[in-house]
This record gives sequence, C-alpha cells and structure tokens, in this order.
Amino acid sequence: MTLITEAKATLSNVNDPVILEVARMESIEPDNLARLIARGRVVIPANVNRDITARIEEGGIRAVGERVSTKINANIGTSRDYIDHDEEFLKAETAVKYGADAVMDLSTGGDPGVVRRNILKKLVIPIGTVPIYDACLRGGAVVDTSSDDMFNAVREHAEDGVDFVTIHAGVNLNTLERLKRSDRILNVVSRGGAFTIAWMLHNEAENPFYEEFDYLLEIASACDLTISLGDGMRSGCLHDASDRAKASEDIALGELVQRSRSYGVQTIVEGPGHVPIDEIAFNVKSMKHLTDFAPLYLLGPLVTDLGGGYDHITAAIGGAVAGVHGADFLCMTTPSEHFALPTVEDIREATVVTRIAAQIIDTVKSGVCENAIAREYQMARARKDLDWEKQFELLIDPERAREMYERRPSSEACSMCGDLCAIKMVRDALGKNKKFRS
Amino acid sequence: MTLITEAKATLSNVNDPVILEVARMESIEPDNLARLIARGRVVIPANVNRDITARIEEGGIRAVGERVSTKINANIGTSRDYIDHDEEFLKAETAVKYGADAVMDLSTGGDPGVVRRNILKKLVIPIGTVPIYDACLRGGAVVDTSSDDMFNAVREHAEDGVDFVTIHAGVNLNTLERLKRSDRILNVVSRGGAFTIAWMLHNEAENPFYEEFDYLLEIASACDLTISLGDGMRSGCLHDASDRAKASEDIALGELVQRSRSYGVQTIVEGPGHVPIDEIAFNVKSMKHLTDFAPLYLLGPLVTDLGGGYDHITAAIGGAVAGVHGADFLCMTTPSEHFALPTVEDIREATVVTRIAAQIIDTVKSGVCENAIAREYQMARARKDLDWEKQFELLIDPERAREMYERRPSSEACSMCGDLCAIKMVRDALGKNKKFRS
Repeated sequence: MTLITEAKATLSNVNDPVILEVARMESIEPDNLARLIARGRVVIPANVNRDITARIEEGGIRAVGERVSTKINANIGTSRDYIDHDEEFLKAETAVKYGADAVMDLSTGGDPGVVRRNILKKLVIPIGTVPIYDACLRGGAVVDTSSDDMFNAVREHAEDGVDFVTIHAGVNLNTLERLKRSDRILNVVSRGGAFTIAWMLHNEAENPFYEEFDYLLEIASACDLTISLGDGMRSGCLHDASDRAKASEDIALGELVQRSRSYGVQTIVEGPGHVPIDEIAFNVKSMKHLTDFAPLYLLGPLVTDLGGGYDHITAAIGGAVAGVHGADFLCMTTPSEHFALPTVEDIREATVVTRIAAQIIDTVKSGVCENAIAREYQMARARKDLDWEKQFELLIDPERAREMYERRPSSEACSMCGDLCAIKMVRDALGKNKKFRS
Repeated sequence: MTLITEAKATLSNVNDPVILEVARMESIEPDNLARLIARGRVVIPANVNRDITARIEEGGIRAVGERVSTKINANIGTSRDYIDHDEEFLKAETAVKYGADAVMDLSTGGDPGVVRRNILKKLVIPIGTVPIYDACLRGGAVVDTSSDDMFNAVREHAEDGVDFVTIHAGVNLNTLERLKRSDRILNVVSRGGAFTIAWMLHNEAENPFYEEFDYLLEIASACDLTISLGDGMRSGCLHDASDRAKASEDIALGELVQRSRSYGVQTIVEGPGHVPIDEIAFNVKSMKHLTDFAPLYLLGPLVTDLGGGYDHITAAIGGAVAGVHGADFLCMTTPSEHFALPTVEDIREATVVTRIAAQIIDTVKSGVCENAIAREYQMARARKDLDWEKQFELLIDPERAREMYERRPSSEACSMCGDLCAIKMVRDALGKNKKFRS
C-alpha cells in the first residue's frame, strides 16, 4: 500500500506513523495532511525498503508541497573526471549539516552504486537518483541502452531504497517535434534529457519511459518510490525560456501526474532552468495548473547567465521568487555550476544560501509563515537586546557570523558602528526622554 | 546653473557634455534624456567642483533613474574601532574594479576628511557622503551639535566636490510622532536617523535639515550637489516594515523632492531596509508615487534576518525584486553587515553579487533590457560553442569562474559532466540525425 492509498483510506482516522510525524513537524492537523497527500499536493518520499521507523526516530522524514515548509535538495556525485567516493560522501554529510532536506546522487563516474548505497545506509533524509545515468553508462554507447536496461536500473534503485527518482518521461516524440521547430540557442541542457533525445533520435523510437509509463508505475508502487518527473526540455539560457517545447513537455508531465495518482504513486514535477525574472511567476503558475498542483521542484531558475562562479546566488534569487509564486522544493546550484564538479566548500555555501531562499519563501508561504515569522521576530528582539549569542543561535549559519564578529571585535556593539550603534543610540535617547515613553 | 535648469533650458538643443556622455553610454536620445533630467526622473550626480571634463574622459559619469541601467553603490569608511585609511581606500578601489558605479564614504573613526578627500582625488565615479556623521562627531556629544555645524558640514563636503550627500530630512516631528505610536521592535536602525532623533529628543526641536531645507538647497544648488533623501525611519527587521512611521516619512520626502526640483536641485530618495519579499512591490511603487518618481536608492531590502554572514546575498535577493518593480540604485550590503566592519574581500564579494542583481533587473528594465539581453544571448552562444574564453570575458567576475574551471580541469567540456555534457551530446545527436536538421 502506498502512502496515497493509505491516506485516501484513512482520511479522518489517520494512524500512519509517517503522516503523524510530518503533521507534528509541520504543525498541521493529520487529517488535513492526509487530504493533501491523497490529492497529491503533498508528497513524502519514503521508500518502504528503507527502515522508516528508524528514520522517524532520527528525524529523517520530509514532506514536500503545499502547506508544508519549503525543502531544499543537494546534488552530489562523481563525474567521469573526478571519482572520489569519500569526497562525495563528505559533500552529502556537509549538505545535511547545513540544512539540506534531501540529497540526490548524480554519480556518472566509477561505480555509481557505491555512493548511492553509502548515503542510503548512513543518511536518514530522503535520497534521490537519476537511474537513466546508470542504465546508459553501464554498457557502451548511450544510444545502445535497451529499454529493459532503463527499467531495470529504476528497479535496482527502488530495491536499494532510493526514495525518489528523476525520470524524463515528458521527453517524447511530441515534445521533440516542438523542439525541432524551436529557435533555441542551447536546445537541451538537461543531462537526462540529452541521453533520452540522443537515444530517441538514434533509435527512431518513442522514449520508453513515456511509452511504458505504466510499467514504471508498477515498479514504483511496489515500494512507494516517488517519481520526480524531470524536465528534459528545461531552458538552458534566458533566450530559451517559456517556449513551446517546454510547454508541451509540461502538458505531458501533467497527464503523467494524473496517471501516477490513479496508481497511487507519489509524483513531483521538475521545472526550469534559466528564466528571466519577470517570467518566473507565470511559469510557476502555469506549471502548477498544467500538472494538477503537483509539488514543484526547481533547479534555479537562474535569472542571469552572467553570474558564473556565483550561480548559487543567481539560483537563490530565482528560487526565492519562484517559491513566492508556488515552487515547493529547491534544488541548490553550487558556485562551480557550469565550470567544474563542486567541492565540499561549494556544497556548504550552496546549502546555506538555498536555506536562506527557503526561509525567505516560508515567511510568506500560506500555512507555514507563522513559524518562519516567529523566528524572524525572535531575531529582531535579539538584535534589539544586542544579545549576540541569541543572534548566532537563530542564524541559518551561526559559524560564519561568529567568525566575522570575532575577527574584528568591538568593546561596544559590533565593529561596524562601535559606540555609534543606532539601536543603542535610540534606545538611550528614548530612555532619557520621558515624553517618548508616555 | 544646475543640470536640471540646464536640461530644462536646452530640451531640444542639448549640448551639455555630461548629458551627451550619458546619452551615449545609455543608448538614449539626448533630448529624451534631457526631458527625464528636467522632470527629475533621472539624476547625474556630478559636483561642479570636481573636474567634470576629466571625469567624462575617464568614464566616471553615471546616471541614476528611469530608462538608464541599474547602478550600484559601495559603502566604505572607518569605524570608531577600525581606523585604517589605506584599507578603506583599497576597499574603494576594489569596489570600482568589480563594477561599483558609486562609492559612499561613511567614515566615523579618525579624521573622516582623509578618506573622503582621498577617494575624491583618486576615483572618477560619483562619490557620496553623510555629512551629519562629520557634524556630530566633530565635537563632544551628538546632541550638542548645532544646526550651523550640520549645514557647515554639508557645505564643506560640497566644496570638496562630493557628488551626492545623504540628508535625513524626512525625520521630522511628525514622523517622530508616528514612530512613538508604533509597535516597532527595533525602532530606528539608520545611523543618521538615530543621530537626528537623539538630537531632536534632547533639544526638543525640529530637525534643522527639515526646518531649514531651503538653506540646504541653496548650498546644494551652488555646486549642483545631488541630495539623497535618507530614510531614517527605514525598518530594521521584517516586523517593522511598511508601517505608518515609514509612510509618513515617505510623504515628507516626496514634498522635499518637489521643493528640490523647483530649486533645480537633483534628488534621490532612499528606501528600506528589511522587508518581507511579498511587501517589496507595493513599497517600491508607493515610494515612487509619493515622491513624484524620484530615482529610488535602496539598501537591500533584506528579506530575512536569519542570513547573517550572507547578507550581501539576502540583500541581492531583495534588491533584484525591488529593481523589477522600479528601484534604480542598489546600495550593496556586505557579508559582514550586522557583525563587523567589512574587509576588502567582503567588498569584492558584495560588489559582484550586487552587480549580478543589477544585471538581473536590467534584463527586464524598460529601455535598458535590449543591451542587457544582448549580453545574455552572447553568453548562451558562447556556451553552445563551448567557448570558454568568450564565456569568461562575458561574466561579471571572470576571475572566479576561471579559478573554478582550472582547479578541476577536464579534457572534454568541464569536469562537472566531462564527456557527458548535455550540450555536446545533443549537438552530436542532432548533427547525425538528418530528419532533425531538415
């Protein structure tokens, strides 16, 4: 029984421990949460092949979607050029330390199973993968992969306990035709999308994940694997955003969401990409409508292509705006994006910055903002009191701020203003002025 | 004759070299630009006491406002705790190197005149100051400063050649009354605002800059000093945003803009502060309307208070959103904000991140977006061609990306994907597939 069927069955009599745990974490009534899960508006990626009881005890359960706090994902994984399994695990640990809610292993170098099984064993949060990487890299050329190889890779990951998998099932002959007629500069920048298109063009055949989507759902429902519908047509530069290739993929993804739900399979939809800042709102709203309000998972969007070396920030700007309009799940971009495989320090930086974006979103997210704002007000009071320890405690990255504070100490407030601290001055002036206090 | 009176007089026969230079830089017809200057919607801070001819030749002229590209300012200056004139100059140079359009000297430690005169002599871009810091720090207690001291400080800065000065003239008895009745957590966080309020409360008197605003305009018009109307009531935390204290200050600022324009004095208006992301749009639009569409200069806004150590990023997120809705001039926040006087490296980081925000805004800014987008498309084409040198050339900070690229080299595209580069894969697949090319 998957979580969707469970939720449907127990709408007003919820006793599922995963649902109860999320209800507690997110300050929501279990019945309301069950309704959102039953409708597919909230997903809880939790493969039954992992030890769910232990994960509940260790705080490893996360929900994504409406009325729950914004979640963030960190991508790790080897590349063909850099294969260091220990470093990749250290990246995953660092992401968790700084607040990642999920980790995806995107390894393409060495034996990808090593990193995947290692994080599945040692981390408790949701773990995601892109099985087509494995399928395509196992043998010779990508285009020679069989459709059996593709589905077998999904099954293997599902049996290992992976909680969610990205499947580029929306890249089909119809969306490919729309791409052919487009005037894109960069065509396709999604790696999974590129594999799929190369395969389709070479074999002159439909994408197996689209054609045999029901078979995929069968595999997924067996262990309540969550399907994250990848956007192979996501734009790779501002020029290519919001076009017909992407819109036709969104329509396909929406229909796949509908089918997944009827099978009781939890589904997430992935979104662009590179998008001008004034096109984010309608893109997010359009995707939500076309996909029956499935939880929306964004990589970026990057709102300029000139910020290379700082793309974690460019993505956080786009992500914050997207979250305000409805995106639920942010995939971090690292500073090295577009130029190199990230380092451990890149992952730390990207995790913190993406958490900041998530907090910004949560201060205005329906049903969530009360808790997010409460923490903001605690910080404001700590600042008013010049209570530095309390400030550090409330920050997303206390270490960084403490380093700065201690690097240039001040006998008064902080070394920026010293005894000319505005907060102090006004407090003193008000204290002395009786008229003001009345 | 100030630039406004000049622009009014020569609306269709523009020969002012400053106007002609900006028209060239910003790809705008000189007549159109003159009209915007005459109406006060564009300002060009350029004190006649500096060598304007030399500044034109060396590319030091900048315009701020509608229909011109978004500008960014870097704050530098000593504090009581850290007085190192050379380091402050190095910060200014670093800001200019990475793309700052203006530098404000906010020194409050040592002899503030040293830093100011140094940057006025050695830099060509607009220089700003906050003269009340000087006035209040010259003698003993802030509250003992005379109104003559305040105006004399402005005159001294103007005679030194300062291009724009922040004057907290909107902090008056009326706004103070609104503040008294507010339920703010942090009251006042503007340092100039705090000086002013402390002075007003102690002396039980109106703010001299408000009461004798015409005297200020006399000083300003003598050398075409641009007045940047400071927001002493800007919110210091999300809780305090968008309240009556700030709104009443905005109304006062709008009336002062009106008076300035009738004197031919160029005026900028400063804005908040700390604002929830969904309150930015209406705040910016309201300020624009209340101040007769004066160029809007923002510090932030910070959209969460939990990002300490990363406030350059939090400010860039708020600034990008504000710019989309009409903010014209972004004052960078550094990573050290709220915790320490920034280092040179902080200034570099903050400048680049704020430039990224400005570029994001310019991709959607009316009359400006064509150039900004052209550069985005050049980058997209360089990526398509895997032309790394061209990419570095187009980036806002080429050094950082090059370091990353070279740290983890790849024989193929870059070490993130190696030979699995999506761009390469799809290009190859399309090249082989004749149907696609047709």
